[in-house]
Amino acid sequence: TILESPAGAALGGEKRYVTIMMTDLRGFTSTCEQLPAEDVVTILNIYLETMTEIILKYQGTINEFIGDAIVVVFGAPILRDDDAQRAVACALEMQVAMAKVNKQCQVRGYPWVEQGIGINTGEVIVGNIGSKKRTKYDVIGHNVNLTSRIESYTVGGQIFISQSTVTACGPIVRITNQMEVMPKGIKKPIIIYEISGIEGQFNLFLPEQEVVQWVELSTPLP
Amino acid sequence: TILESPAGAALGGEKRYVTIMMTDLRGFTSTCEQLPAEDVVTILNIYLETMTEIILKYQGTINEFIGDAIVVVFGAPILRDDDAQRAVACALEMQVAMAKVNKQCQVRGYPWVEQGIGINTGEVIVGNIGSKKRTKYDVIGHNVNLTSRIESYTVGGQIFISQSTVTACGPIVRITNQMEVMPKGIKKPIIIYEISGIEGQFNLFLPEQEVVQWVELSTPLP
Repeated sequence: TILESPAGAALGGEKRYVTIMMTDLRGFTSTCEQLPAEDVVTILNIYLETMTEIILKYQGTINEFIGDAIVVVFGAPILRDDDAQRAVACALEMQVAMAKVNKQCQVRGYPWVEQGIGINTGEVIVGNIGSKKRTKYDVIGHNVNLTSRIESYTVGGQIFISQSTVTACGPIVRITNQMEVMPKGIKKPIIIYEISGIEGQFNLFLPEQEVVQWVELSTPLP
Repeated sequence: TILESPAGAALGGEKRYVTIMMTDLRGFTSTCEQLPAEDVVTILNIYLETMTEIILKYQGTINEFIGDAIVVVFGAPILRDDDAQRAVACALEMQVAMAKVNKQCQVRGYPWVEQGIGINTGEVIVGNIGSKKRTKYDVIGHNVNLTSRIESYTVGGQIFISQSTVTACGPIVRITNQMEVMPKGIKKPIIIYEISGIEGQFNLFLPEQEVVQWVELSTPLP
């Protein structure tokens, strides 16, 4: 079920070094409960349609949609030198495109939706997994789980990437923040990085966020 | 991508009362790291093949395979009176069938694998979700997330079901244990039930577990 599967994708399973991206609409499940089912599905389809186009543009392999979540692999079945950079650029363009998604939601009177994105780079097992009646080209391994954990730390609008993705991208990634976290299933804390842009051939940046100015008061508020 | 999709499955999205089952191979990700990729994929395919057959026998709709996890819906697209009971019976037969899976693993020299299963009953949104190029019949909503949380409390060999599934099944389910848990995203603690069998037309039970006999010593061990 990959969109562009070249002939000869490994049937038996192999280890590959890939960059994995996971996204979801933060808080969307609560939103779901308050909306008619048709509206929920329409919002999701607007979102997934917009994101699919961008993911294909950056040659990501859409592994699956899981409700409002998307799992994307860069580097399998086809390995390219700039897998990690393309994943990061793709994530940035996806965040920028949320304005377009929300414009479409707004005209229909739907609530605002916000996306979180997690990216991680590392070894995984890829292969055709399933039963005779139903097989998919899938990725498995702790690096897949770790990507999901990294994504879970985001709030809407954020992109968090792992150290290995930072390293794979090189100095063109603009990092705005970092935090130490201890995801479930990991033995020691790891550092994850919030990013806001990528230079070089991609030259993509998130819109400047409003900076809240803290004004020092000479006398305390009553 | 459902195996048996009748014509006329809702395109636009609708609310449905269903029973959701999620399974995975507990601890399998760690096992993966120590095995050749081909062996990992072979184990998964033995497991998924065996389970798919059982799920179809109980008229479950396989929503997706996610690595070593299976997401199954009973009650959509086709609603039946005994959705919850069939889900529970299916889970029991799936646990019993792990002996067969492990026999096949053993002859190939693979490690032992163990399955955890979580089941929950409630309202979800179902519909055809995705992009023009890639649509799937999917289920979303907090009851889907809750099923995943319930499954996460299992260790290998266990089946945990929610209160709503117990209620939907009626008195034919054999409950062996219960625990209060507080899953992420839930506002107050819930009780989940460990089950070992179902009576009535299904009449299926897990093999008796070895009972550890605690012997009262008249004098303490040195």
